[in-house]
Amino acid sequence: MTPDPEDLGDPDDPRLEPYTRMRERDLVGRAGRFIVEGEVTLRLLLGRRSRFRAESILIAPERWPSLVADVAACPEPPPVYCASKAVMSAVTGFPIHRGVLAIGLRGAEPAATALVPPPPAPALVVGLAGLTNHDNVGAAFRNAAAFGADAVILDGESCDPLYRKSIRVSAGAALIQPFGRLPAGQDWLRLADALDLQPLAFSPGATEPLDALTVPARALLILGTEGPGLDAATLAQARPLRIPMAAGFDSLNVATAAGIALFTIARGQGRLGPS
Amino acid sequence: MTPDPEDLGDPDDPRLEPYTRMRERDLVGRAGRFIVEGEVTLRLLLGRRSRFRAESILIAPERWPSLVADVAACPEPPPVYCASKAVMSAVTGFPIHRGVLAIGLRGAEPAATALVPPPPAPALVVGLAGLTNHDNVGAAFRNAAAFGADAVILDGESCDPLYRKSIRVSAGAALIQPFGRLPAGQDWLRLADALDLQPLAFSPGATEPLDALTVPARALLILGTEGPGLDAATLAQARPLRIPMAAGFDSLNVATAAGIALFTIARGQGRLGPS
Repeated sequence: MTPDPEDLGDPDDPRLEPYTRMRERDLVGRAGRFIVEGEVTLRLLLGRRSRFRAESILIAPERWPSLVADVAACPEPPPVYCASKAVMSAVTGFPIHRGVLAIGLRGAEPAATALVPPPPAPALVVGLAGLTNHDNVGAAFRNAAAFGADAVILDGESCDPLYRKSIRVSAGAALIQPFGRLPAGQDWLRLADALDLQPLAFSPGATEPLDALTVPARALLILGTEGPGLDAATLAQARPLRIPMAAGFDSLNVATAAGIALFTIARGQGRLGPS
Repeated sequence: MTPDPEDLGDPDDPRLEPYTRMRERDLVGRAGRFIVEGEVTLRLLLGRRSRFRAESILIAPERWPSLVADVAACPEPPPVYCASKAVMSAVTGFPIHRGVLAIGLRGAEPAATALVPPPPAPALVVGLAGLTNHDNVGAAFRNAAAFGADAVILDGESCDPLYRKSIRVSAGAALIQPFGRLPAGQDWLRLADALDLQPLAFSPGATEPLDALTVPARALLILGTEGPGLDAATLAQARPLRIPMAAGFDSLNVATAAGIALFTIARGQGRLGPS
């Protein structure tokens, strides 16, 4: 039995407080919360594969009919607040066009090691090293989810996958793709060792081409930033691979490189169904 | 013999007129001109593979030493204007951090058919159908250049690869990757027929997986928008292909899909050197 949404007409209603000062809070953080925008992403937050709980939903009344079934199917339906787009815009501080917002709760972050199936099961883990651009992190999550990676592990420098723009660029993948942080004091090689994963480090300067690789059953794909790339110690100890490119313009976006590597390895591990 | 740059201290100097009202002109167009930003992109504009001529360069004085050799190597060096970043910011109307700008000249757009090597040579052409997002067009160009596509052909709906943001996202590939427009009144199938290319249409609903494809020696990869995708007529007449993905989140960005398809086909055609 789904509760009816509550109509809120006052932008100062205290229940709307988590939706206020949205852009300012993008910068300073939200203390255990994050913002979800749009119908497709909200469905992922409410759905079976979601890793997070919704604290509340704020929608324009005309959007309720297409969402009622998703809220009803949710084991613990959150409160749903209805407000006109004008009130939503007044609350958030910028124009709300789509009329669908929600507050997600981060919960406790799982240990990176808990996300990876133990050997001898196949495993595919993506390591993001120093990715400080929200577009790239979001796009890498989208590709990780599309090719069925078990987990994404981020180092301490990489930015937040639950930042508003990261979630949007990920097409909501950040809400369903298991992820964790590289434990402080650990490095990629020790993580690979502890989890029995073969560390593969992508670098334009590597000599071994991706398509000549015999795909390991348990792989850690380490991806660095486009400029500096991975540090020398990681490259020296991992198996360095390059994506073959045309002469004269060997430049790929890091998330696109992740997509090509994930496709190749996921296919080699038999994750993508019969061809 | 490279001419010395001319110091311009007056934001109202008429030679700076093409640099004024930059954001407004992003929207209304520039009558045969486009903007290049940053050192890496300027090098591509001045370089051997550039498809365009520079009309002028505007740089902060401290950037000249690292660019002088590139200007000197240019067969017809454009005038170089020097101005402080403060003057550059006053001219353009927003803060200029990198201190490197140039005006490029579009010249005449080549006929799409003139860009494709005649049979029986191998050919790889990317068709962009209805791509109205500058990020996606820029990213698709970057991937086309990285995997050595002969040409990118855009339909009338797709946006301008020489828009400021497209060039930036393309990492400058828009300046060196040959491209043209689908002639008015022609469709993808007739273009493929005229150029003796096998039309491959990517669609999540297709049954044939990319990795089971015997790569054709002459291919036209047609990519549509993520939402509506390609029209039914194109899908019905082209060879529809899908990129295999994990169950439950079959969602790839169109430029990432292009990257995976280009990598697979370019490798199959032997464009990427020995593996």
